[in-house]
Amino acid sequence: MGEVKLIGTPQSFPCARIEWALRIKGVEYEYIIEDLANKSALLLESNPVHKKVPVLLHNGKPIAESLVILEYIDETWKENPLLPLHPYERALARFWAKFIDEKCVLGVWGATVAEGEEKVKAIDAALESLAFLEKQIEGKKYFGGDKIGYLDIVAGWICHWLIVLEELGEMKLINVERFPSLHEWGQNFLQISPIKDCIPPKETVAQYFSFGINYVRSLASSSK
Amino acid sequence: MGEVKLIGTPQSFPCARIEWALRIKGVEYEYIIEDLANKSALLLESNPVHKKVPVLLHNGKPIAESLVILEYIDETWKENPLLPLHPYERALARFWAKFIDEKCVLGVWGATVAEGEEKVKAIDAALESLAFLEKQIEGKKYFGGDKIGYLDIVAGWICHWLIVLEELGEMKLINVERFPSLHEWGQNFLQISPIKDCIPPKETVAQYFSFGINYVRSLASSSK
Repeated sequence: MGEVKLIGTPQSFPCARIEWALRIKGVEYEYIIEDLANKSALLLESNPVHKKVPVLLHNGKPIAESLVILEYIDETWKENPLLPLHPYERALARFWAKFIDEKCVLGVWGATVAEGEEKVKAIDAALESLAFLEKQIEGKKYFGGDKIGYLDIVAGWICHWLIVLEELGEMKLINVERFPSLHEWGQNFLQISPIKDCIPPKETVAQYFSFGINYVRSLASSSK
Repeated sequence: MGEVKLIGTPQSFPCARIEWALRIKGVEYEYIIEDLANKSALLLESNPVHKKVPVLLHNGKPIAESLVILEYIDETWKENPLLPLHPYERALARFWAKFIDEKCVLGVWGATVAEGEEKVKAIDAALESLAFLEKQIEGKKYFGGDKIGYLDIVAGWICHWLIVLEELGEMKLINVERFPSLHEWGQNFLQISPIKDCIPPKETVAQYFSFGINYVRSLASSSK
């Protein structure tokens, strides 16, 4: 199995993805908590390109970017596969993972930070992306079918981090009327071990996001 | 092998990636040329989320997003592997592919469309990203080692499409003095069959890009 270390911050959902995957696989790891306000030499050496968490260190070798790390974990520890086994199903899972990161995460973030007349447009764009996910999960317990897999892990921020963003952005995106399947999936997902064991308190997540929201808003108002 | 169709436009480099991969694998395919000014019902049905090319149809089942399609091709037709075999090497290839699409492609595009005082900053950002790639190819013939692989295919736009963007954007990013290894790699890459067999004329690529450049610049000037 080798020596496995995760450089991360527990408030970050890309880091939670890695913890969830390692625990589903039964891989023991050491969590090296990173202070993003004062980045460590280890982080800067391990991810000189993006200087971001999460980074997985396996026997000292670094891997960055959460989706890349998830594939590595799945290829390295074969038990409890995360991705489906058939190439076509794998392609669909990768397509939706990319969609989640590029459209849903950025869409929800955009809606959170937007102000004034931009806010309505930004919320509509986020809802449009989330509606595609609602369709994907309709009639299924998990994105992975009967048990959680890669796409559930990638979408997992929706059950908890999105709710914090809704509160910070003074908006409501997901509820049982608008997206019943996504809402139910989120409720189920949060009950499962090891998911529920790696959920940071909402207050610390809010604090973590607030810094970024204030920063983006200050940039936007200074460029007006 | 089944029935393989590629919905694409030959001027688009994400579509070239798919042609290169299929030819390296020896997979026969039908090319369905898409008119992006008047999108076909087939494209809209096959990629309802993004409505973009390329789409691979394998026995009628659609797959979109060029990086996702490349992985599918590699998993479906095993001969002449595109990705490295070892999980760590695979993770690095995926990391750099993501970097190329998110930083290099968008960086070079940003530098092309930028005007006025923004242009210098945008060119510097593009050069910074390309410098990371230069380091990756130093001392190697191909990103894949002795023969071309996944990352060469992903980076392949640099040898041809980037040169068209340099001309349209009135700038020079890659030359033998600044990035000797990347420059040499590009020269080698363009000589290999099947790469050289799927390179559209520069004039048609320029025409293809010009529409987007004019559109972005008109948006930028109308928001001033």
